[in-house]
Amino acid sequence: MTKVPSAETLAAFAAIVGDKGVLTKDADKTPYLEEWRGLWHGKTPMVLRPSSTKQVSEILKIANAANCAIIPQSGNTGLVGGQTPNGDGSEVALSLNRMTRIIEVDAANDSTTVEAGATLKSVQDAAFNAGRMFPLSLASEGSCRIGGIVSTNAGGLNVLAYGNARELCLGLEVVLADGRILNGIKKLRKDNTGYDLRNIFIGAEGTLGIITAATLKLFPQIKRYDTAFVAVNSPNAALELVSKVKQQAGNRLIAFELMADLCINFAVRNMKQKRPLQSPWHVLMELADATEGQLEAMLESAMEHGLATDAVIAQNDQQRQDFWSLRESISESQKPEGGSIKHDVSVPVSKVPQFIAEATSAVSKFLPGCRFATFGHMGDGNLHFNVSQPVGMDKQAYLSKWHAMNEIVHDIAVKLGGSFSAEHGIGTLKREDMQRYKSPIELDVMRGLKALFDPNGILCPGRVLLER
Amino acid sequence: MTKVPSAETLAAFAAIVGDKGVLTKDADKTPYLEEWRGLWHGKTPMVLRPSSTKQVSEILKIANAANCAIIPQSGNTGLVGGQTPNGDGSEVALSLNRMTRIIEVDAANDSTTVEAGATLKSVQDAAFNAGRMFPLSLASEGSCRIGGIVSTNAGGLNVLAYGNARELCLGLEVVLADGRILNGIKKLRKDNTGYDLRNIFIGAEGTLGIITAATLKLFPQIKRYDTAFVAVNSPNAALELVSKVKQQAGNRLIAFELMADLCINFAVRNMKQKRPLQSPWHVLMELADATEGQLEAMLESAMEHGLATDAVIAQNDQQRQDFWSLRESISESQKPEGGSIKHDVSVPVSKVPQFIAEATSAVSKFLPGCRFATFGHMGDGNLHFNVSQPVGMDKQAYLSKWHAMNEIVHDIAVKLGGSFSAEHGIGTLKREDMQRYKSPIELDVMRGLKALFDPNGILCPGRVLLER
Repeated sequence: MTKVPSAETLAAFAAIVGDKGVLTKDADKTPYLEEWRGLWHGKTPMVLRPSSTKQVSEILKIANAANCAIIPQSGNTGLVGGQTPNGDGSEVALSLNRMTRIIEVDAANDSTTVEAGATLKSVQDAAFNAGRMFPLSLASEGSCRIGGIVSTNAGGLNVLAYGNARELCLGLEVVLADGRILNGIKKLRKDNTGYDLRNIFIGAEGTLGIITAATLKLFPQIKRYDTAFVAVNSPNAALELVSKVKQQAGNRLIAFELMADLCINFAVRNMKQKRPLQSPWHVLMELADATEGQLEAMLESAMEHGLATDAVIAQNDQQRQDFWSLRESISESQKPEGGSIKHDVSVPVSKVPQFIAEATSAVSKFLPGCRFATFGHMGDGNLHFNVSQPVGMDKQAYLSKWHAMNEIVHDIAVKLGGSFSAEHGIGTLKREDMQRYKSPIELDVMRGLKALFDPNGILCPGRVLLER
Repeated sequence: MTKVPSAETLAAFAAIVGDKGVLTKDADKTPYLEEWRGLWHGKTPMVLRPSSTKQVSEILKIANAANCAIIPQSGNTGLVGGQTPNGDGSEVALSLNRMTRIIEVDAANDSTTVEAGATLKSVQDAAFNAGRMFPLSLASEGSCRIGGIVSTNAGGLNVLAYGNARELCLGLEVVLADGRILNGIKKLRKDNTGYDLRNIFIGAEGTLGIITAATLKLFPQIKRYDTAFVAVNSPNAALELVSKVKQQAGNRLIAFELMADLCINFAVRNMKQKRPLQSPWHVLMELADATEGQLEAMLESAMEHGLATDAVIAQNDQQRQDFWSLRESISESQKPEGGSIKHDVSVPVSKVPQFIAEATSAVSKFLPGCRFATFGHMGDGNLHFNVSQPVGMDKQAYLSKWHAMNEIVHDIAVKLGGSFSAEHGIGTLKREDMQRYKSPIELDVMRGLKALFDPNGILCPGRVLLER
């Protein structure tokens, strides 16, 4: 069990990072304590902003000896509350946002090594400037940072072709709970020398160690994008379409995003987006380095076979940007519609239509009038099954149904062989789901790992796994 | 510490698997105890061949209670001795070769679930018959089995485009040392729910649990291959070439194999292979689903820029097969040349020429007259730096230099940021290298994992990590 840090412990932390590295005034601390949607509000005696791995190491040595809880944070864009200290003011926030160096870009090796505080955008830019591409892309890329990206095994828009953060990470530097530095910075595609320590920390959300640097894979730049907005009648048609275009385009298919029409309505109404097509369901699909006319031929064939009813191909980069802007504005567009209860689920791709049908029906029964802003990365089987409140209902009354609705939806996802958190992780939001859906053996092994890597339980206590 | 199993323990094992599942006669046991190159010879009281995960579980429950060492084996094609019981007859061999089911092919989800004893070839075939492709490919694919493939994180020929076994594995079923079954069979591309247990077992070579089934990613079939044998003057030219063709072909480049001319000589002389070109170094490169004329244009440009001196493009499938047959015969072709000391190293791709130059020079100083059959997956930075004995030297006298030469070569690889075992793993062969090259912190964490997952040390004792 962790304790409220003593004045001596706090002074020791402050001495490590120096004046520039510690925030104690409320106004300074607030940006680190508020979640952007307003769902979590934390308290902390101080925000530590170390400037080096060595400082992180020294902080953890002291914290571990003093049983002081540490909550690492990088971009503060997480969606499950994992980055926010709890409300009792006993947990010390540790931000990586001063460790922003792009340490190296090795173009000939198609890799880059960066500090945990580098923003995703800065990594994308560094790769681009070296004639390469870092393919991970998501809506918050301007503000989210690599430490959080890797710690949460972020996914995003191009997982279909390039994988999650896990697949993009070649090496990690991690500070262990006791302050020891595990130097696993490697630039290798192949290295079978003992147990894979990297993947223990990827997706562990800072509960097993603090990631301070990472080596990431780079790729050739894409020279040509072909992007289309496609009208489909149903998720079933979308499933047939994704299966067909994967076969036709192979690894040139880099995105296949499904959107219910309500998502388009919200984006047009609330975010001034342009509507490309009229249809009950929409697909945004994109090919990389396809041949001239390939996408057009694929879409014509899809329409002949009744898989699509209409399609618009982006005629220039602006139009492509418009399509993507529409897609990326969907999350934000739900805000003005009142309360939105989110589900970030995945199922086998083959089960997406069944999931949508069953979950929509079950939630409608649970609370008539709910509006379904269903969208997601259909190519990966990952849906953001977001449910906006019935028109006119009280927002807080609606949001109080969060856990009950989650349970209905997650039960269906898990029954279909799916996951109750596809890409957003567990944090504090889904800890109870872990107890509900994971087997006792899985939980036991995870608790064993937590005890091995953080015997005093100082790293993000109670996140991911409930404290016992 | 494990003990010699008692007659009661052996009888209990035999009762679990029944008559069909146990081998005790020397002639029956021998195929499981001999490594194919004759480098390891094991002894065992019995070979257990369970037919189900439940039987594996029951065996481990008894073994764990009795402190009996268990050595899992699937295809017996490993190259580091990990699959062979030691010589004192105290270790019980457990073969997965009766658990060969293809449990499911889900074409719409691009996945297949198979038992650990399924051969790689059978998985490739099942995928093909469902209109899909399982891309992992290596020389022993007819006999190696999925349990070994996943346990050793096998790589092979197409890692450049599709990744190692780790990247191809979506889910695992594992029997833990105490017999509990960890059911992680999942067909999901995205699942961020707690710690990643899958990757703990992938590459752990059976020392942390026994993999009994796996769910694997499938891909669209490749409709068109363009394959060329290319003459290059040096590893430096090959580095410039791989960098250029990656930029030009993006993810259509699926193989880029470098071979010293001596490899071609051995293959022609000893394996009746056809020589495509005269050159000090050769590259076998392959594009998937490229456009008509794309490879030819790339090679013309490479020759104009002095990166290649000559090239032959396969004109038909037979010629493509001949190129690959030549490449795959290289390992075998070294046998008639006497002793061969093997190194399976990786370095950052950008360091491959420097590694070859330094290692060749250092080994030549160590033992003049050595012949360098250097080849490997240059696109991944993975080289099989195999050194054939000087002509006329006594084979055993040469092989006695194995560890001393390894140390010279591995020191250079590690100095360049590389690995002393890129794809073959550690087994018994490279346990001392682990002590030499891994940091005390890495070793400590690995020992902690071993103690957590196998507290009695019954699974492959002393493999990967030396016993203390």
